[in-house]
Amino acid sequence: MVADLNTTDPGFETAFAGLLAARAEHDTGVDGVVADILADVRARGDAAVIAYTQRFDRLALTPETLRLEDAAIDEAAGQVDADTMAALATAADRITRFHERQRPADIAYTDQAGVRLGQRHTPVDAVGLYVPGGKAAYPSSVLMNALPAKVAGVRRLVMTVPTPDGSLNPLVMAAARLVGVDAVYRIGGAQAIGALAFGTDGIAPVDKIVGPGNAYVASAKKQVFGVVGIDMVAGPSEILVVADAHNDPAWIAADLLSQAEHDEAAQSILITDTPAFADAVARAIEGHLATLPRADIARASWQRHGALIVVGDLTAEAPPLIDRIAPEHLELAVADPDALAARVRHAGAIFLGRHTPEAVGDYVGGPNHVLPTSRGARFSSGLGVVDFMKRTTLLGCDPDALASIGPAAVRLARAEGLPAHGLSVSLRLTRAL
Amino acid sequence: MVADLNTTDPGFETAFAGLLAARAEHDTGVDGVVADILADVRARGDAAVIAYTQRFDRLALTPETLRLEDAAIDEAAGQVDADTMAALATAADRITRFHERQRPADIAYTDQAGVRLGQRHTPVDAVGLYVPGGKAAYPSSVLMNALPAKVAGVRRLVMTVPTPDGSLNPLVMAAARLVGVDAVYRIGGAQAIGALAFGTDGIAPVDKIVGPGNAYVASAKKQVFGVVGIDMVAGPSEILVVADAHNDPAWIAADLLSQAEHDEAAQSILITDTPAFADAVARAIEGHLATLPRADIARASWQRHGALIVVGDLTAEAPPLIDRIAPEHLELAVADPDALAARVRHAGAIFLGRHTPEAVGDYVGGPNHVLPTSRGARFSSGLGVVDFMKRTTLLGCDPDALASIGPAAVRLARAEGLPAHGLSVSLRLTRAL
Repeated sequence: MVADLNTTDPGFETAFAGLLAARAEHDTGVDGVVADILADVRARGDAAVIAYTQRFDRLALTPETLRLEDAAIDEAAGQVDADTMAALATAADRITRFHERQRPADIAYTDQAGVRLGQRHTPVDAVGLYVPGGKAAYPSSVLMNALPAKVAGVRRLVMTVPTPDGSLNPLVMAAARLVGVDAVYRIGGAQAIGALAFGTDGIAPVDKIVGPGNAYVASAKKQVFGVVGIDMVAGPSEILVVADAHNDPAWIAADLLSQAEHDEAAQSILITDTPAFADAVARAIEGHLATLPRADIARASWQRHGALIVVGDLTAEAPPLIDRIAPEHLELAVADPDALAARVRHAGAIFLGRHTPEAVGDYVGGPNHVLPTSRGARFSSGLGVVDFMKRTTLLGCDPDALASIGPAAVRLARAEGLPAHGLSVSLRLTRAL
Repeated sequence: MVADLNTTDPGFETAFAGLLAARAEHDTGVDGVVADILADVRARGDAAVIAYTQRFDRLALTPETLRLEDAAIDEAAGQVDADTMAALATAADRITRFHERQRPADIAYTDQAGVRLGQRHTPVDAVGLYVPGGKAAYPSSVLMNALPAKVAGVRRLVMTVPTPDGSLNPLVMAAARLVGVDAVYRIGGAQAIGALAFGTDGIAPVDKIVGPGNAYVASAKKQVFGVVGIDMVAGPSEILVVADAHNDPAWIAADLLSQAEHDEAAQSILITDTPAFADAVARAIEGHLATLPRADIARASWQRHGALIVVGDLTAEAPPLIDRIAPEHLELAVADPDALAARVRHAGAIFLGRHTPEAVGDYVGGPNHVLPTSRGARFSSGLGVVDFMKRTTLLGCDPDALASIGPAAVRLARAEGLPAHGLSVSLRLTRAL
């Protein structure tokens, strides 16, 4: 049953809180299995990776064939038609241009005490991109994960992708070629994450691992966090559409279904100020579902996790509800979307106005489509160039500058009971004064 | 035994690799204990927090006394002498000024296709600052964790600090007052992390948790990651000093000991181009240790993890060694530190020249002293204002802009087998064209 909420109902607060809590994830016991696989890969390297690939992907590899040959990548990529290749190139170009604007500014100045201060950004050396096999292997995800790394200046970018029974996904291979991946390893699962994190004889370790994956991959990424950096552990996709009655219900219905078709665990929510419009959207969803190829998945998602929320006043009531949901994707299909967007604090990405369906941002908008789910937008961000760079701060004193600020450091070191800290400053102060 | 390495020794590579690997952390079985505590806090809330505080801190609390009264904070803070208060204020002022420079720039532009693109930053709503009890309760850490959150615009900033047997640390209370913490809860350990992450009747949940702690706290932070954001899980402190022979060995020795005195697991490394200077530093360390109050800890750290590395040519050989160590703190005590710094890719913070001891940066330099350890500088950064903000991207199309970029999205949605994605775009294209 689709949740049908109205802020004027006495039970609204309980029902809304229930909607937020319903999708909280629970550990399903994969952590132990994954820990064993990671330990085995750490201990036995390629031999363990090859054994798991045989078991899970029914693929017999050797240390020499872990890495896909360039000719095989090219052959698979060559199966993609020209129109799709052109669309991929358009997407790559637009994504690159937007992300180039994300390059952070460095800092360098000398303050009134004569202290030189700075902060600079340098790229991560080596990045591993995990690409899932099967239904979630999207070339657009390859672009969205790889291109920010390229813009950041990452030197070595490798990909792992499981190839069950040896079959390659032409679209993924084409995307890998387009972004300029340095190597593709035909492995997946926790064993791929372990190989990237710890390294093996055949696979040099990376410094950061990004990309989506199933529960085993997510657990493995969380477990190797610290050995390497990771991106967010992504949950099912979500969309929140805020729409007044001056929209075509069929458009809004398609927007809601575009997330619902991803996964039965996906969530689509509409907030509107007009009960009759909510009804019209619900009917339009049924209409689309009658003909959509992925209707089974979309219907299950919509029935289990979908919600129609009617409020009295969009301007006043929508922003606090949006912030509590902290949606991955937020569509504002209203007359003045900028005014409404300015009042939102927590959202991964915002799509402005009636002519910006979320799906255009999945592919060719330019901003990243890797976004925080499960209310993660309260504290985290979509993938960006800064995720592939790190900050180094710089501090420089000459004798006068140290004479100016050093005594306070000595005082605090003493208060904290750290005498060598104080000594390292005071030795220099004696000479400087 | 202090490791004594020379790049001309045939065994250098093996010895250096061993030095890097020796401090890799191993799970000590705390995860299970912590998981149980977190589950209990999630289920029973305040009752569980109070029970663990009774057990671990020998302190009987009620839901009403979990939060420290303002009068108690003021009374404890009032015990700090005026000179130390003035030094704390100097530190807070300098830290605030540097971090104000870290505020990120937003993005807003319209591209050639007529697509409006943007990115904006908003603060995290609520942050929990974990402050350890006992020896590692440093007021400087309170400033370093809290002030970036304040500069970012965090609305609610609360602190947890264990108070074994009820005793308060005056310096920590003074720092809490100085930065303007909204509430102080007298709890610690995994139970404090659980209370901050899940919330209890008495403690509203936060969105992000930062601050140092022991192995239980580190494990708890890692386990609640996803429910809330966390900062890096910090390991023992490290310093790498690159110094030529034109330094006073006593200064460099004090710098090395300033990290060694933190913790027996801390690591201090010297890279120099002059064997006689390395010997002189080693002797100066022994000299300092003869009189330093914390000599036991510092000596243990130096003996177990310290290293003297002699290279033939600092300019050529130091940068690649530095990058492999990826030190938390890097001191460049050479004639032209800027030139050397420019060749370093991986370091948390760099201290430039002979008159910039690392300890001045621990307190009053301005940049943050919460920095990545255990080679984390390969992929992560010191704490900063952006850690308390998140990015939201913005995308806006009018009918013409969608007509320009929409067809490529429809093509890619079709290629990926996501028909509702394509439909949400193509419905609008029909009308726009």
